[in-house]
Amino acid sequence: MEFLVRIQVRLPPDMPADQRQVLLQAEAVKARELMAEGLLMRIWRVPGRQANVSLYRAQDADELHSAISGLPLWPSTEISVEPLATHPLEASPSS
Amino acid sequence: MEFLVRIQVRLPPDMPADQRQVLLQAEAVKARELMAEGLLMRIWRVPGRQANVSLYRAQDADELHSAISGLPLWPSTEISVEPLATHPLEASPSS
Amino acid sequence: MEFLVRIQVRLPPDMPADQRQVLLQAEAVKARELMAEGLLMRIWRVPGRQANVSLYRAQDADELHSAISGLPLWPSTEISVEPLATHPLEASPSS
Amino acid sequence: MEFLVRIQVRLPPDMPADQRQVLLQAEAVKARELMAEGLLMRIWRVPGRQANVSLYRAQDADELHSAISGLPLWPSTEISVEPLATHPLEASPSS
Amino acid sequence: MEFLVRIQVRLPPDMPADQRQVLLQAEAVKARELMAEGLLMRIWRVPGRQANVSLYRAQDADELHSAISGLPLWPSTEISVEPLATHPLEASPSS
Amino acid sequence: MEFLVRIQVRLPPDMPADQRQVLLQAEAVKARELMAEGLLMRIWRVPGRQANVSLYRAQDADELHSAISGLPLWPSTEISVEPLATHPLEASPSS
Amino acid sequence: MEFLVRIQVRLPPDMPADQRQVLLQAEAVKARELMAEGLLMRIWRVPGRQANVSLYRAQDADELHSAISGLPLWPSTEISVEPLATHPLEASPSS
Amino acid sequence: MEFLVRIQVRLPPDMPADQRQVLLQAEAVKARELMAEGLLMRIWRVPGRQANVSLYRAQDADELHSAISGLPLWPSTEISVEPLATHPLEASPSS
Amino acid sequence: MEFLVRIQVRLPPDMPADQRQVLLQAEAVKARELMAEGLLMRIWRVPGRQANVSLYRAQDADELHSAISGLPLWPSTEISVEPLATHPLEASPSS
Amino acid sequence: MEFLVRIQVRLPPDMPADQRQVLLQAEAVKARELMAEGLLMRIWRVPGRQANVSLYRAQDADELHSAISGLPLWPSTEISVEPLATHPLEASPSS
Repeated sequence: MEFLVRIQVRLPPDMPADQRQVLLQAEAVKARELMAEGLLMRIWRVPGRQANVSLYRAQDADELHSAISGLPLWPSTEISVEPLATHPLEASPSS
Repeated sequence: MEFLVRIQVRLPPDMPADQRQVLLQAEAVKARELMAEGLLMRIWRVPGRQANVSLYRAQDADELHSAISGLPLWPSTEISVEPLATHPLEASPSS
Repeated sequence: MEFLVRIQVRLPPDMPADQRQVLLQAEAVKARELMAEGLLMRIWRVPGRQANVSLYRAQDADELHSAISGLPLWPSTEISVEPLATHPLEASPSS
Repeated sequence: MEFLVRIQVRLPPDMPADQRQVLLQAEAVKARELMAEGLLMRIWRVPGRQANVSLYRAQDADELHSAISGLPLWPSTEISVEPLATHPLEASPSS
Repeated sequence: MEFLVRIQVRLPPDMPADQRQVLLQAEAVKARELMAEGLLMRIWRVPGRQANVSLYRAQDADELHSAISGLPLWPSTEISVEPLATHPLEASPSS
Repeated sequence: MEFLVRIQVRLPPDMPADQRQVLLQAEAVKARELMAEGLLMRIWRVPGRQANVSLYRAQDADELHSAISGLPLWPSTEISVEPLATHPLEASPSS
Repeated sequence: MEFLVRIQVRLPPDMPADQRQVLLQAEAVKARELMAEGLLMRIWRVPGRQANVSLYRAQDADELHSAISGLPLWPSTEISVEPLATHPLEASPSS
Repeated sequence: MEFLVRIQVRLPPDMPADQRQVLLQAEAVKARELMAEGLLMRIWRVPGRQANVSLYRAQDADELHSAISGLPLWPSTEISVEPLATHPLEASPSS
Repeated sequence: MEFLVRIQVRLPPDMPADQRQVLLQAEAVKARELMAEGLLMRIWRVPGRQANVSLYRAQDADELHSAISGLPLWPSTEISVEPLATHPLEASPSS
Repeated sequence: MEFLVRIQVRLPPDMPADQRQVLLQAEAVKARELMAEGLLMRIWRVPGRQANVSLYRAQDADELHSAISGLPLWPSTEISVEPLATHPLEASPSS
C-alpha cells in the first residue's frame, strides 16, 4: 500500500551551522536506507521551503510509522500522512 | 489495518420522504453486510448531524475504498479517511 | 457515553532524552490504569506523528476531563474531544 | 451533562413566505416542548444571521441527538455540538 | 446584553508548579468577584483542555473588556468574544 | 455600542436583471433609513465583490439584529457581526 | 518538471447513470492518452472519495494546464496544482 | 497603486457551450480594454483551474472596483483583492 | 482612500511590567500623531484581546505602510490590511 | 515559467537592531543579484507587514528553489510558491 507523506522541517533558526549539518547528513543516510529497502519510493523538494513531499510503500500504517519515526529529524518536523488506493487507470492500464 | 472514516450525508432537503426512506434502508442493509464481513467494526452517530464516524478494518486502502464506494448513499456524501497505526499500549498491554 | 479524543504531544525537541523517557513511561502507566478502569477503550497511533486518537467511555464530560487532565503529559499536549452518540446500526444490529 | 449547540438555518431564499412561516412556527412549538422538558435551557439569536446558539442539558449524546433531530427544521440546518464539563468555579462556588 | 466568551489558557509547560498555583488561585478569586457582580453568569470547562467557555452579561463591550482584561491570567490567554441577541423563544416564552 | 458588520450578497447569477434592480433599490431605501436613524454610521464597498463592510451604532445586539434582518436582501446574504469596544485613544484623545 | 495534482470530481448526484458512465469512460480514454504521452506519470484514488491524486511531468505550467483542461470531466472538478522540485536524495542517490 | 486580484470563475457545468463561448468572448473584449487603458497590467492562468491571478494599477480601490465589476463574468465569480505597496528594492533599485 | 487595519499585539507574557508600560506609552504617542495628521481616523478595541481594529485614510498603500511600520509596537504585532472602496450609499446619500 | 512567491519574514522581536540591519542589507544585496539575473522580476511590500509578494521567472521549480533558498533571511521565513501559466490574453493580446 502506498502513502503520500508531507514533512516540514522546523529547525530553530539559531541552531549552529555545524550541528545542523550533522543532523541533515544523518537524515540523508537514513533516508537512503529507506530507499534501498523499497519503503521510500519517491521524494520531492517543496520549492522555497525546507519541506518535502514523498511517496512511501509500506505493508501498513505500522511499518510506515516505524520508518518515519526513525528519521533523525523526526522530533523537529510536522508530518502528515495520506493513504492512497489504486486508481483503476493503473490497475488495468491497457483494458 | 484500521481506518477512521467520517461520512457526512448530504441528501437534498426537498427529497420526497419515501425516496429518502428507501435509500436509508438500502444503506443500512449494505452497512450490516460490511459489519458481518468484519470490515465495519464500529459506527457512531455524530450528535445533531446526519453524519457518522466509523472504524473500519481492511487489508489496505483498496479494500476500504471498495467497501465505502459500494454504499448506496455514496454519491451523496462527503467522506474523509484517516489511516491508523497500532499504539504501543495496544501492542503490548501488559509489558 | 463514548468520546473520540485526539492528543498531539508537543514536547520541546531539545528536551533531554532521559527526561523524555521518564515522562513517556509515566504516561504509559497512567494510560494503562485508565484502560483497566474501562475509561480508555481503544487507542491508535496517528502514523508519522507523536499523536494519538483514542476512544473513551465515561459517565459524562466531567469524568472524561478528570481522566485526561490527570495524564502526566497533559500540560504539553493539544487535545480535542468529540462527543459520540449511538448509531442505529449498533443500537439494533439485527432488527 | 450540558452541551453547547450551534444551529445555522439554511432555508432556500426562494421558499414561499407562507411555507417558511409554517415551518418556523412548527419549529417554535417543538422548541418550547424541549424547554418545558428541561432539555433546552437557554437559546440566543446570533445577531445578523438566521442562526442560534443554545444550551442543552441531556443525559448523554443520544438524548441530545434525539431532541435536535426531531426539530422540524433539522433537514435544512448545519449543526455543531460541543460537550461541556463542570467548571471548578461552579462546582464549588464558595470554597 | 450577553456575550459568549472562550478562553484558552497558554501557560508555559515549564512554569514552576507553585507559581502556576498562585496564578490560578488569583484567577479564581477575581472570577468569583465577577460572578458576585453579576457579570460572569455561567462558566464551563472545555473537556480535555485548559480552556473554558463562559457567559457574561455586561452593559456593552467596554464593560466586558474591562472585566476580562482584569483577570490575572489575561496576558497568557487567547480569547474570543461573541455577541448574543435575544432569541424570540426567550423574549416571549409562552406566547 | 458599535459593531463592525460584513455582508456578502449571494444573489443567484441567473436572477433577471429587473428583479435584481428592484431588490437592490429597496435595499438602498432601507439602508438610508438606517443611516437617518443613526444606526448605520459608515458603509464601504469591498472592492471587486458584491459585499460591504459597515459600522453600526446600536443599543445592543437586539437592536442591531432587528435593523439588519429588516434589510430586503437579508435572506440572500452571509453576514458576520463583530462587537467593538472603545479604544483608550478615543476615550481620552488628549490625556 | 513534475507537478502534484489533486482532482475532486463534483458530478451532480442526480445525473443519470448512463450519462455518468459515458463521461467517466471518455475521461479514462483521455487520461490513458496523457499516460502514453508521458505527461501523466502516476495516479492514485483518494480512498472513500471520487477524487484522485496524480503526478504529472510537463515542460511547464502551460503544458500542464493544457493537459488537465482537456479532460472531459474538467468543468465538473475542483483542482489544485503543486509544483515539485528535485530533492537532493534523487539528484544524487549514491553520493 | 497596484493591486493583486484573484478571480475564480464559477459558471454552471451545464451551461450550453455556445452561451459560455459568448460570455467568455465578451470577457476577453472587456479585459483587453482594461489592458489598453493601463489598468490591467498582467494576467496569469492558475494552472488546472478556470481561474486567474492578475495585477492591476488603479488610482484607488474605487477605480479598481469599477473596472472589475464591469467584467461580463463578474456575477459568476469569486474575487479577492490585495493591496500592494512599493518594495524598497523597486523604489531604489541601484542605491 | 480608506483601509481597515487589524492589529494583534503579541508581547511576551514575561516582559517586565515597566518595559511594557514604556512601550505602550510610546505607541500611544505615535498613534496620536497619526490621528492629528488625519491618517488614523478611528480605532476600536477588540473586546477581550490586546488587539484593535482601525480605520486609516491614506494616499495609497505606501503611505499606509509607512505609518504602520513606524509604530513602536510594530515588530511585536500581527497585522492585516484590507482596502475599502466607496459605497454608493456614501457616494450619493440623497440621490 | 513564472511563479508567484510570498515571503513572510519572522525575525525574533528581540534581535539586536544592528544584527537585524546587517541581515536585511545582505538580503537586499542578494535580491538585487536575482533581479540582475532576470529571476526576480517584480517585488511588492505587503502593506503593514514584514512580508512581500514577488514574481519570479525561472526555468523550473529547481532553479526557483535554488534562488530562494540562497537568500540570507531564508531560515527565518515562511514561504509559499504558486506556479503560473500563460493567460490567453497575454499569449495573443491582439487576436
